[in-house]
Amino acid sequence: MNPLIDGLQYANWSEKIFRQMREGCVDGIHVTITYHESFRETVLQIERWNRWFERFPDLIFQGFTAEDVAKARDTGRTAIFFGSQNPSCIEDDIGLVEVLHRLGLRFMQLTYNNQSLLATGCYEAEDMGLTRMGREVVAEMNRVGLVVDMSHSGERSTLDAIEHSTRPIAITHANPHSWHPALRNKSETVLRALAESGGMLGFSVYPHHLKGGSGCPLESFCAMIARTAELMGVERIGIGTDLCQDQPDSVVEWMRVGRWTKKVDYGEGSAAAPGFPPMPDWFRDNRDFGRIAEGLRKVGMSEAEVAAVMGDNWLRFMAESFGPMANG
Amino acid sequence: MNPLIDGLQYANWSEKIFRQMREGCVDGIHVTITYHESFRETVLQIERWNRWFERFPDLIFQGFTAEDVAKARDTGRTAIFFGSQNPSCIEDDIGLVEVLHRLGLRFMQLTYNNQSLLATGCYEAEDMGLTRMGREVVAEMNRVGLVVDMSHSGERSTLDAIEHSTRPIAITHANPHSWHPALRNKSETVLRALAESGGMLGFSVYPHHLKGGSGCPLESFCAMIARTAELMGVERIGIGTDLCQDQPDSVVEWMRVGRWTKKVDYGEGSAAAPGFPPMPDWFRDNRDFGRIAEGLRKVGMSEAEVAAVMGDNWLRFMAESFGPMANG
Repeated sequence: MNPLIDGLQYANWSEKIFRQMREGCVDGIHVTITYHESFRETVLQIERWNRWFERFPDLIFQGFTAEDVAKARDTGRTAIFFGSQNPSCIEDDIGLVEVLHRLGLRFMQLTYNNQSLLATGCYEAEDMGLTRMGREVVAEMNRVGLVVDMSHSGERSTLDAIEHSTRPIAITHANPHSWHPALRNKSETVLRALAESGGMLGFSVYPHHLKGGSGCPLESFCAMIARTAELMGVERIGIGTDLCQDQPDSVVEWMRVGRWTKKVDYGEGSAAAPGFPPMPDWFRDNRDFGRIAEGLRKVGMSEAEVAAVMGDNWLRFMAESFGPMANG
Repeated sequence: MNPLIDGLQYANWSEKIFRQMREGCVDGIHVTITYHESFRETVLQIERWNRWFERFPDLIFQGFTAEDVAKARDTGRTAIFFGSQNPSCIEDDIGLVEVLHRLGLRFMQLTYNNQSLLATGCYEAEDMGLTRMGREVVAEMNRVGLVVDMSHSGERSTLDAIEHSTRPIAITHANPHSWHPALRNKSETVLRALAESGGMLGFSVYPHHLKGGSGCPLESFCAMIARTAELMGVERIGIGTDLCQDQPDSVVEWMRVGRWTKKVDYGEGSAAAPGFPPMPDWFRDNRDFGRIAEGLRKVGMSEAEVAAVMGDNWLRFMAESFGPMANG
């Protein structure tokens, strides 16, 4: 059987959600464990996960390698792969890249909307591309096997990362800008460069990234995936739902505001709608991946193509990406 | 061929010393990476080691399991196992036990001379035994496979740890008090309890632990080992040289004083001799383990007994100790 892998979630984790993962037969998930948190605060988040792993060993375990997806499938559990949406966790210390990789971090965004020490986020007016430290950190991430994720980065920084990285990068959760012109969605230039370099795009179900928002029909989402498969190649795409299940709205404020401003920044929301938007009715939680697969079949994808999008591609990418560089 | 393992060193590491390890055919070493350092400061020490591992991959690599000793032997390198001489690295956070174990910490002393959050050090006037947190942390260390080391602890705390720990503990670097009555050397009561519980004693070559100090003859040291083998059983003993090669005296002051006093504490030294004492002429550095083995033969130990003391026992102990608890 083919694996089912989600390229990004950030839920308010609970036994209920872990059981829904099992109901949905989800074998591997890249979970966000940290945004603006310092290294020490990030380690506290790892400690929270360690307690969940200890409490629910029959439902989840920490994934370190692509083989853990098969282990999850074989033992009826979900492998949890850690990721960071901002490089705050490495502070100003390149040595923390290897340390966090040892602790299981497998994806790290170089920016989260704003300028970071490494690159420019998609909400800045100017994009300066990779910084001096950014180039060093990308090389170190390449060396140890920590995936560069540019989901929240600006266009130039993203193209810079694709070019500078010696290993394929990922945009774990975003959609094509041509389908829905959100600031977070990606241009065809970026998507082509990503595909040509062997990278991966995970399609987001987060309503702000969907044409029509929460009311976006499944058919529209799946037709967009089929068109993107033609643009990028069906082997370069997967799912990255950006599911933020059961989160209180205080969390989306932390995601957007962190400690960088004393004002409220609404990010993709607005003063009138500051909270998490409701998910589309065809994707409420981890039990609904089958609906996406069915939708892909309906827009004409073959079984092999559906399997590629639903997990095979992420699995191949993980196998290529999570270990030390072959000639490193 | 039998492995050669040293149960404790804290050198001023350099390429010179790593090459001496190879000249001496040392397969595995437990190295101290931290004393009074906070978690973040301890991670900085791990980062220093990561750079040495990256720079000298043909000489050293980080050891995580007992199998890494065989890997070291097979590839002509030395496996480096991390340890802490004080629990400062876990701060007041039991969750850091698992995090540091994931980063490769394999030994942790519950105290370094003074009272800690966990137990009482050997320089305190009163010994209250394991604290409330101490019992919790020992159980957590048992669960993940982090060895309790009581080298610098008081008598009652040491006996408490032996009793409370569900897995054998270690005294990585000390000698019998009956041979040389230093505060750091251990009573027959402790040594018997340690042996009966399946624990390990590593014999120290640090001059303050030797009868006659720096001038202690090799014959006296080896005869002491042979007598201790009769007391504890030859399978319960190994070497733990406490070699502090090339360290400036500022380091021994940090070891003794940390940040706990504004005065100078001389520990095992004195105002007249505050620095590191000179090593005995029969053990200058990692090239001299063969002399100890030869000395053990001369006091009548068989080849099998010499091999047990020089590495086989530590290897067995590592295999039993470094992984998660079997029924945990």
